[in-house]
Amino acid sequence: MTVPPSSLPLPLSSSPLFDHVERHRDAFLERLFAYLRMPSISAHGTGIAETADFLEGLLGGMGLAVERLETPGWPVIVGRRSGPAGTPTVLLYGHYDVQPPDPIERWVSPPFEPEIRDGRIYARGAGDNKGQHFAQLLALETLLAVDGGLPCSVIVVLEGEEEIGSPHIAEVVRANRDRLRADLVITSDGPVHESGRPTVELGVRGVLSFELRARGANRDLHSGNFGGIAPNPIWTLVHLLGTMKDASGDISIEGFHDGIISPSDAELEAIARLPLDLAGSMAALGIDHLDAPAGRGYYERLMAFPTLTINGLHGGYGGPGSKTVLPSEAVAKCDARLVVDQDPDAVFAAIIAHVARHAPGVEVIHQGAMAPSKTPIDSPFVAPVLAGVRAAAGEEPLLVPAMGGSLPEYVWTKVLGVPALVVPYANHDEDNHAPNENIEVARFFGGIKTGIAVLVELGTVSGGGVDA
Amino acid sequence: MTVPPSSLPLPLSSSPLFDHVERHRDAFLERLFAYLRMPSISAHGTGIAETADFLEGLLGGMGLAVERLETPGWPVIVGRRSGPAGTPTVLLYGHYDVQPPDPIERWVSPPFEPEIRDGRIYARGAGDNKGQHFAQLLALETLLAVDGGLPCSVIVVLEGEEEIGSPHIAEVVRANRDRLRADLVITSDGPVHESGRPTVELGVRGVLSFELRARGANRDLHSGNFGGIAPNPIWTLVHLLGTMKDASGDISIEGFHDGIISPSDAELEAIARLPLDLAGSMAALGIDHLDAPAGRGYYERLMAFPTLTINGLHGGYGGPGSKTVLPSEAVAKCDARLVVDQDPDAVFAAIIAHVARHAPGVEVIHQGAMAPSKTPIDSPFVAPVLAGVRAAAGEEPLLVPAMGGSLPEYVWTKVLGVPALVVPYANHDEDNHAPNENIEVARFFGGIKTGIAVLVELGTVSGGGVDA
Repeated sequence: MTVPPSSLPLPLSSSPLFDHVERHRDAFLERLFAYLRMPSISAHGTGIAETADFLEGLLGGMGLAVERLETPGWPVIVGRRSGPAGTPTVLLYGHYDVQPPDPIERWVSPPFEPEIRDGRIYARGAGDNKGQHFAQLLALETLLAVDGGLPCSVIVVLEGEEEIGSPHIAEVVRANRDRLRADLVITSDGPVHESGRPTVELGVRGVLSFELRARGANRDLHSGNFGGIAPNPIWTLVHLLGTMKDASGDISIEGFHDGIISPSDAELEAIARLPLDLAGSMAALGIDHLDAPAGRGYYERLMAFPTLTINGLHGGYGGPGSKTVLPSEAVAKCDARLVVDQDPDAVFAAIIAHVARHAPGVEVIHQGAMAPSKTPIDSPFVAPVLAGVRAAAGEEPLLVPAMGGSLPEYVWTKVLGVPALVVPYANHDEDNHAPNENIEVARFFGGIKTGIAVLVELGTVSGGGVDA
Repeated sequence: MTVPPSSLPLPLSSSPLFDHVERHRDAFLERLFAYLRMPSISAHGTGIAETADFLEGLLGGMGLAVERLETPGWPVIVGRRSGPAGTPTVLLYGHYDVQPPDPIERWVSPPFEPEIRDGRIYARGAGDNKGQHFAQLLALETLLAVDGGLPCSVIVVLEGEEEIGSPHIAEVVRANRDRLRADLVITSDGPVHESGRPTVELGVRGVLSFELRARGANRDLHSGNFGGIAPNPIWTLVHLLGTMKDASGDISIEGFHDGIISPSDAELEAIARLPLDLAGSMAALGIDHLDAPAGRGYYERLMAFPTLTINGLHGGYGGPGSKTVLPSEAVAKCDARLVVDQDPDAVFAAIIAHVARHAPGVEVIHQGAMAPSKTPIDSPFVAPVLAGVRAAAGEEPLLVPAMGGSLPEYVWTKVLGVPALVVPYANHDEDNHAPNENIEVARFFGGIKTGIAVLVELGTVSGGGVDA
């Protein structure tokens, strides 16, 4: 696929929209800092209510119609504004909650006192996700200030529970499907490709987390006095797990692969275009071979194939030296990364049935799930989004068919039923969820310009008749 | 096998030897208490030197010729006295060190202040092993007091490092093979059969402890961003272990079973005579089936077959809920219980070769080993020992071909090259290595009488021409 020429006036440096951004750099930064100073830790509830109130005022002050969708947890803040008739409606999704800042002693500057060092803004939420959706909001504000209106209809959806697993967003979207009707969803979250190139992502893997719990005798036993008598729950798990994925790396659970759609030729071509320094990546990980099965490309492993990972296995003695114990219990925690169109519920049912066949005494505990998502590479919105990103960045964006990790994109592609693209603004080393989270200053302003350019490009597409 | 009639005068209650024991009950108990009051904790070194000195004086005072065999650790105290010409030489082995008393707060009475409650003597070392070898020494003293000599030649060997794994006893025996030459070794340690019946044990399983250590990437990774890329060391161990013992319970390491000698018909008959409450044992353990493979008898599992036990397996996340981590390291600690005549060094070499074939990146670490031991059931010393035990107990003893656990009996059967029998005096619930260790008062005095009766019976056997 070739990115079509930009619809924006060239050269970009002379665009009144981008010029507005440049002239307001200090004010925009100061307003971002004020937002970053508000703690909004969903895991603790700290500052969430105040931040939701703040956003209601902010969106209203920008000229958006504001709604507050209550949930059993923290509210979803919605802002909407219609563009010209016949233009598409774009839903911009973000989240105003942040991760806890622990371990706090490892922050160079305090997490809720933003500071610029070496061209980066350091603060909890700088990259994940306040810095990114605030850039989107400033894009809207710039468009409204310079043009007096938006180039297409926009619905802003900001939730406050993403960092605790978005427990209510799917039901909020389901219950408000008509009010949230859009032609396209854009999420600006996560980092760009590690090459630093601007990135547009079409999908994510899903995930299913579960635990296997095996029991033997009612207490730990002496391995001599009872070795050969009492079943050993670690051996039970070893043999059970061995029936779930074989030594050549193939997942061997009946029904596990149901629904998988192989990448299209266009997706495979997009994957082949992604920059790859395989030797460098392996050296950075300290590995001399890739995981089994052999013969798969690096990106195909992350995008086209599911996984079955043992996140942890614990049972019996783990101290120094040896202890001749026959343990009474063992637990394996696992996750499966799922590709389109595996259904996490069906996969869990397949695992339950598999365990019942091979190790009926082992308990299977569901711990969480998120469906995979993928927007077709031939969606009519892909080209204008790429064009907008390219226009703002002055560089050819990478088109990534799927990410290895998981985000609740299925809420848009499956519950709302529309295409959903991820257009990340943050640098690859944003250190989200870690101390010294940051976003490069240049990428924050690049995000505002990308937000502007993408909406301008989408304004040239015929919409689906949805009104914001 | 039928136990031959006793050589002791009947009825036993009128024997001057047993009469001497009865008349000295209070004095014998007080002397045992004095011995139990001496802490001798080899793990800490507490009181060991004083206890060794005490034993030198005690053995010398009894009329034995005393030697002190120094080791790089604590000394081995040896006492010897010849019996009538042509009688066998019996080596009586015991250990004067004890386990640490932790957790000390769970003792009803202090561990080094012996106390009698409900017919039991409570103290650290009461059962393991001071109470048992002190009973043997009082047997010698009684024989010397009443008869003016011993019915056969005796070498007493008391070591001070059994509770830390007997690191030097094999080399002491090897270096002093001529001075310790005997026709038979008797150890009075451990408990009688759980039925309470007096017990004579012919052998023990050996043990080999080792650790398998697998590594993946140089750090824990995100299971989404790297799932399918970096090898998972837990999967590596799961698949490796699966090649070492299959799901049907058969150990599948090439060369592992080399040297195994199946039980003889006489041993199988002895096993068949052992009391068994299978349903009760399984209920006490809380299990509804025995370990794989199926089709083996309860005692055969402990005596006739080796095991491969995973003592512990640890890697990755083990906290509450789920964590989507791809771990960087996993460790399995294992032990193999070995039966006659498996060689722990050969088994370890077989494991090394097996791991090199199936998972060459996995490190194998040797953590300790003890060879198995078995004295032939048709040894000429079995019948007189059984006769002595029966005479003292007034009850048919159980003859146990092998114990499931491990003791350094190979030092006698393989290094010294002589038959070795275990004749335990302690009750099955002696709680050795635990708080409130104890020995029943009746079993302590029964031990003195058994010691007397066994030596009297052995005095009737023609010796090997060994002088004590």
